[in-house]
Amino acid sequence: MASVSVADDRRFVLSLGCPDRPGVIARITSFIAGFGGSIVEAGYHSDAETGWFFTRQAIAADTVPMAPAELRAHFANVAAELGVETEWTLHDSGAPKRTVLLVSKEPHCLHDLLGRAASGELPASIEAVIGNHRDLAEVALAHGVKFHHVPFPADPAERGPAFEQVRELVESYDPDAIVLAKFMQVLPDWLCGQWAGRALNIHHSFLPSFVGARPYHQAFARGVKLIGATCHYVTAELDAGPIIEQDVVRIDHSDTVRDMVRRGRDVERLVLARGLRWHLEDRVLVHGGKTVVFS
Amino acid sequence: MASVSVADDRRFVLSLGCPDRPGVIARITSFIAGFGGSIVEAGYHSDAETGWFFTRQAIAADTVPMAPAELRAHFANVAAELGVETEWTLHDSGAPKRTVLLVSKEPHCLHDLLGRAASGELPASIEAVIGNHRDLAEVALAHGVKFHHVPFPADPAERGPAFEQVRELVESYDPDAIVLAKFMQVLPDWLCGQWAGRALNIHHSFLPSFVGARPYHQAFARGVKLIGATCHYVTAELDAGPIIEQDVVRIDHSDTVRDMVRRGRDVERLVLARGLRWHLEDRVLVHGGKTVVFS
Amino acid sequence: MASVSVADDRRFVLSLGCPDRPGVIARITSFIAGFGGSIVEAGYHSDAETGWFFTRQAIAADTVPMAPAELRAHFANVAAELGVETEWTLHDSGAPKRTVLLVSKEPHCLHDLLGRAASGELPASIEAVIGNHRDLAEVALAHGVKFHHVPFPADPAERGPAFEQVRELVESYDPDAIVLAKFMQVLPDWLCGQWAGRALNIHHSFLPSFVGARPYHQAFARGVKLIGATCHYVTAELDAGPIIEQDVVRIDHSDTVRDMVRRGRDVERLVLARGLRWHLEDRVLVHGGKTVVFS
Amino acid sequence: MASVSVADDRRFVLSLGCPDRPGVIARITSFIAGFGGSIVEAGYHSDAETGWFFTRQAIAADTVPMAPAELRAHFANVAAELGVETEWTLHDSGAPKRTVLLVSKEPHCLHDLLGRAASGELPASIEAVIGNHRDLAEVALAHGVKFHHVPFPADPAERGPAFEQVRELVESYDPDAIVLAKFMQVLPDWLCGQWAGRALNIHHSFLPSFVGARPYHQAFARGVKLIGATCHYVTAELDAGPIIEQDVVRIDHSDTVRDMVRRGRDVERLVLARGLRWHLEDRVLVHGGKTVVFS
Repeated sequence: MASVSVADDRRFVLSLGCPDRPGVIARITSFIAGFGGSIVEAGYHSDAETGWFFTRQAIAADTVPMAPAELRAHFANVAAELGVETEWTLHDSGAPKRTVLLVSKEPHCLHDLLGRAASGELPASIEAVIGNHRDLAEVALAHGVKFHHVPFPADPAERGPAFEQVRELVESYDPDAIVLAKFMQVLPDWLCGQWAGRALNIHHSFLPSFVGARPYHQAFARGVKLIGATCHYVTAELDAGPIIEQDVVRIDHSDTVRDMVRRGRDVERLVLARGLRWHLEDRVLVHGGKTVVFS
Repeated sequence: MASVSVADDRRFVLSLGCPDRPGVIARITSFIAGFGGSIVEAGYHSDAETGWFFTRQAIAADTVPMAPAELRAHFANVAAELGVETEWTLHDSGAPKRTVLLVSKEPHCLHDLLGRAASGELPASIEAVIGNHRDLAEVALAHGVKFHHVPFPADPAERGPAFEQVRELVESYDPDAIVLAKFMQVLPDWLCGQWAGRALNIHHSFLPSFVGARPYHQAFARGVKLIGATCHYVTAELDAGPIIEQDVVRIDHSDTVRDMVRRGRDVERLVLARGLRWHLEDRVLVHGGKTVVFS
Repeated sequence: MASVSVADDRRFVLSLGCPDRPGVIARITSFIAGFGGSIVEAGYHSDAETGWFFTRQAIAADTVPMAPAELRAHFANVAAELGVETEWTLHDSGAPKRTVLLVSKEPHCLHDLLGRAASGELPASIEAVIGNHRDLAEVALAHGVKFHHVPFPADPAERGPAFEQVRELVESYDPDAIVLAKFMQVLPDWLCGQWAGRALNIHHSFLPSFVGARPYHQAFARGVKLIGATCHYVTAELDAGPIIEQDVVRIDHSDTVRDMVRRGRDVERLVLARGLRWHLEDRVLVHGGKTVVFS
Repeated sequence: MASVSVADDRRFVLSLGCPDRPGVIARITSFIAGFGGSIVEAGYHSDAETGWFFTRQAIAADTVPMAPAELRAHFANVAAELGVETEWTLHDSGAPKRTVLLVSKEPHCLHDLLGRAASGELPASIEAVIGNHRDLAEVALAHGVKFHHVPFPADPAERGPAFEQVRELVESYDPDAIVLAKFMQVLPDWLCGQWAGRALNIHHSFLPSFVGARPYHQAFARGVKLIGATCHYVTAELDAGPIIEQDVVRIDHSDTVRDMVRRGRDVERLVLARGLRWHLEDRVLVHGGKTVVFS
């Protein structure tokens, strides 16, 4: 592959949502042009239903004659002109996002994400893996990643302290992304609230079909001809958070639940990896329970 | 393409379901071998959950030294050995299946099916098109197919006589397949019962997501990343009949409901055409609310 | 579906390619903001390899306080600032593109395109159908479209006058798009040159696999597991023009060449329809033998 | 998922190809019925072009009242009746196939296959990994698999001894499958010959497009809209062996060669994993340079 220097690759990424009106794009791009910034990737979306405007702009870092903090300070003035509701981030891709993974016993998503991070496919530093079982400790450690075991009691009513311990561990890493990589535990509402916009889940169905437990069993019972997986932000309402990515795979009458589990793993892996990469690259903007994804 | 004589193409197609036990395949194939029949296509499925066995065998007609009726009479003895629950059909592909299409105003599925029938892609004789509006009369007539207009009153409670008229018209053609090609009317239970196993519907969602009315609006509201279509047999429970075929197409945040309608049409067309072809070729066996499809 | 007035839908669509440099986007969008234009859809692409910049901007027509001709005159000044190599068009979506279809005997693509145009899916006025056989005259006439028959001699060396006649007929309609909808004739170089950028072909393979004649036979012989179709601009080198769209469908060992032909038709239809729609909506920009498609 | 005892899962798998004639299926299934064998999965294919018949039958091991060797001895008589050209194997799924992996520096396929083997998805015992670089030694050892480093000289003309060493190492494990998991070395003809039918390669293009080196660069230059991967048996003619499996992924004008490499990895992983699993489960029969895959 073409060797690419870090300088070539580094970008300042602006993600922004605001009420739409004529001139918004011109205002933002004139600001960038003002200091000679080179836009290497740009996405725009005008949402006719909500009247909002969304954009993502990746600016070559070597064309920006100031530090990220200074750039943010200057852009804050532009954002203020676009209205008080404006939401924006300006991220330096040279600083990989901090990521924590929550797992249980199933290894396939953990394996996949660690492998992608190792090969430079995910712009993330995997800070830690937290499991409610010890099964995946070795995989994490083999990749040089810390593993924390937080046992969960059998009775759902008694899991509060375990969730509190998970929360403390997670927050100690100050993560940009908290990935439920087959964690198999329903987060309590208070935790969903605290992690809003940072916690991603992979659900093994094509939502909104087969919400809740054992979706492959539900799919088998219904006799569907495709099974899927959904990567979504975690919200208090189970499996109802904003959808980031979905995909499906074909099955037929000869597939048992076990076959679905096997086939489904490939979709789960891909969908979670795509969703997480987009999140880490600031490609996902959430508005009104839905996502805009500049993929 | 290679010209193929009718004799080459003609098959006797056996479709059968029975309780599974060792020796079933041997019994059936020995019967066929007994008169020198050449099996040109064969599908088998043993269902571990229900303990049933399913098969479809296509026998080259020119290797069968008797008429279809005689073959059926002989095979009835074999079927009897396989148990009283055995269900089977033995169809001569030289006799195209009789088909009636029910439509409303949307033309894309009707267009597509008439085009396929005309080009020999569907082993069907389209006997008639019945519409609750007159909009599609011309299309049908341009293909040399009869069109019947049965107006439906606005009040759902008063539609009984219209459904009765539709039923009479349909039955007058003695059809093997009754296709709701965007008919947009929910059949009453009594009609679902009479047409069980013969009536196919196309629903514009990836069932069981978005049952009922306006599925694209539901999909838009939920923010899904794929939309789909489902071809299923009609049963009294709305959108819950045995699924024959499904497929999906990718959408994104920039797609409005109108875009979904446009993109969805392509999936609807393909899914209905595939499902109908499989039905007409005796590739679909129904058991326990699900289908076995030897596609 | 939501009823949408023409005014809501009408757009002025700017498509532009020019040498890239900081400030290009700002210059263009400031121009649009200058008259209060509302950008409802925008695509941008910076090509690192060629150093070119591409954009497509759809402006709500009711926010443009001048006629298309005046808008073009004003924009010409902006384009001049962007360099002499700049190529651009500014199209009024309220004026459907003029389209001529070239066909032979195979009906599926013609059927499909006429159906889509009739249902408003293609922003095109189909001006005429020209066939080297009479087989598809009726289909065209049933849709109210003129049909011209231009017989082609069996000897390829003697086809010059026929091509000349086709050229004259085509040019008499002054078309924006000339679609070889399974025309099955290789255009002479001089005609490719005259129609550069306007003539679209559908090739029934996943190019660059299986260039030339009988691609399904080639695919069968090689034993591939997917077959495809490619929509591309016509150039003098056979099947080597800029690719607009491609797709594939899965096959297996049980599929004969005839099955491939049947399955392939569905891909051909979809790929041609998508490619043509993008062309008609000014979504396709050609540069260096490749396309940028703002789909 | 549902726990399944080994006895439930164990099958005797018959794979067979022979000249087709009426009665072949009956002869084979009567043999199985003769000892009360229960067929849990069956695939049949009559190839009209070559006149060959292919079948794969999975018999529940607990319904076979004899050892595999005895079953083979009995079946040899049946096979003899089907003609001297008949080729068949009868494998006990309780004995996992021995597999050796050949790698270079790229980790994604190795990672993926080791992960699948560990989770029971591949019916294989991975005996060893052989690399022409040391980069992937750790990954292999972390999974408890032996790693052998065989350095390859820079000059292709001097690689004979290295290939001889690889051959010796491979044969010392007596493998059923030799997987070139991104080995990036073209095997010499004599080695292709010795490993015929056992060596699988993953090529990062949708063959026959882009044979040879740097297929993603070729794909980028041509401007295709989909890229693919192909799993095939290795033969002396480069990238021309029988194709087992292929798949593609959509790209667009914004994808650089590096993006293609990243996207392509997901297809390579899946296609190789599927192809290898089918090979290990005796689902792939080769005839006339093509494969029959009972997937």
